[in-house]
Amino acid sequence: MLTLFHCKNARSFRALWALEEMELPYKLHVLPFPPRHRHEGMHEINPLGTIPVLVDGDVRLTESIAIPHYLATKYGPTDLAVAPHEEGYAAYLNFLVMGEATLTFPQTIHLRYQVFAKPEDRRPEIARDYAEWFGSRLRNAEGMMGEEFVAAGRFTMADISVGYAIMLALSVGLEEFVPSSFRARWSSLSARESWKRAIAAQNSSA
Amino acid sequence: MLTLFHCKNARSFRALWALEEMELPYKLHVLPFPPRHRHEGMHEINPLGTIPVLVDGDVRLTESIAIPHYLATKYGPTDLAVAPHEEGYAAYLNFLVMGEATLTFPQTIHLRYQVFAKPEDRRPEIARDYAEWFGSRLRNAEGMMGEEFVAAGRFTMADISVGYAIMLALSVGLEEFVPSSFRARWSSLSARESWKRAIAAQNSSA
Repeated sequence: MLTLFHCKNARSFRALWALEEMELPYKLHVLPFPPRHRHEGMHEINPLGTIPVLVDGDVRLTESIAIPHYLATKYGPTDLAVAPHEEGYAAYLNFLVMGEATLTFPQTIHLRYQVFAKPEDRRPEIARDYAEWFGSRLRNAEGMMGEEFVAAGRFTMADISVGYAIMLALSVGLEEFVPSSFRARWSSLSARESWKRAIAAQNSSA
Repeated sequence: MLTLFHCKNARSFRALWALEEMELPYKLHVLPFPPRHRHEGMHEINPLGTIPVLVDGDVRLTESIAIPHYLATKYGPTDLAVAPHEEGYAAYLNFLVMGEATLTFPQTIHLRYQVFAKPEDRRPEIARDYAEWFGSRLRNAEGMMGEEFVAAGRFTMADISVGYAIMLALSVGLEEFVPSSFRARWSSLSARESWKRAIAAQNSSA
C-alpha cells in the first residue's frame, strides 16, 4: 500500500496528481502547513520535516519530482514516463527537473518573504527579485517546450512537474508573471480527470 | 558527439563529472560566469541563459541533475544509475533530486545576497536564513543516506548530485554548515579519478 503525506496545494500535489493519473490505490494524510511546526511526529515521518512523503513498503521518497517518475517507472509500463530509447527522453527528464529546480524554488522565496512572513518580517524587494527571476525563466523556457505537452508529444509526469509550478504561481499572487500561453496550458491540464480527483481527494481528507 | 557548456565549479560540474565517470567522449566549452551576461550568443545556446547545457545531437538538456541520469540510462548499461527493479531505486531517485532541489538551491540564495552582490546590495540576514536552511536540511538528511554512498550501496549519479552540493558549500564560505561526517564523504568522493579528471578538464579548457 502506498501512503502519501501531503499539504493542500503544496508541491506534494505533484505526487497526489501522479497517483491519480496512475490510478494506483493509496492512503492520503493531509497535514497542516507547515508540517514541521504543526504536525506532531513529523520528524519521524520525515527527518527533513517536509512534504511530500511517499511511503512504499519500507522505502520513503521526499522529493516531489522524484515521486511521479518513481511511480511511472516502478508501477508501469505507462506512457506517463518517457523511456530512454524514445525521442522525447531528454526533454522529458529536463522538464521533470525544471518544473521544480528552476520554476518552483524561486517562487518559494517569494512565498517566504511576502506571503508567509509576518508584516514586519516581509522583504518585498527580495520577494520581487525572485518573482521576476521565475517569470523570466518561465518565458524563456517556453520555446523549448512542445506546444501542448512539454515533452514527447503526450501528457507525461513532466507536465505534472511544470504544471504544478504554473498552478502555484496562479494561486500565490504571481499571475502577472504567467504569460497567457501558460494559462492556456494550465486550463487544459486542470481539465484532466486525474487533476480533479486529486483536488477532490485533498479536500475530502482535510 | 556530446558537447557541454560549463562554468568552472558551477552546478554544471555535475554533468562534467558524470561524463568523466562514464568515460564518454565530449567537447567542453568553459564559459565565464555568469554566462547570461558575459558570453555573447548564450541565448542561442540556451534561452534560459543558464549552464549546464548538454547538446546531444539534436537534443539539449539544461538541468544539472537530469544530465547524469540521462547519460547513465541512455549510454549504459552502467551501475551509475539504479534500475527500477533494484532495491535502492527509490533512494537513488530521491537523492538525485535532493542534491539540487533541497541542498543546492538554498546555497544560491546565499551566493546571490552575500558572495556575488556588490557590498551595498548585500543582504546578510537573507543569506544567513538560507545558509541555515541548507545546514538544517543537510544534517537531517544524513540519517536517510547510506553510510558510504547515498543509495544502493554503491557510487551512483545520486552521489554526484549530493556530492556537488557539499563541494559547493565547502567552496563558498558555508563550511560551518557541513558536518564532519560530510567532509569525510567528500574526501572519499573527491579522491575518485573521475572527479580529478573533471577538475583537470575544466582547468585546461579555461
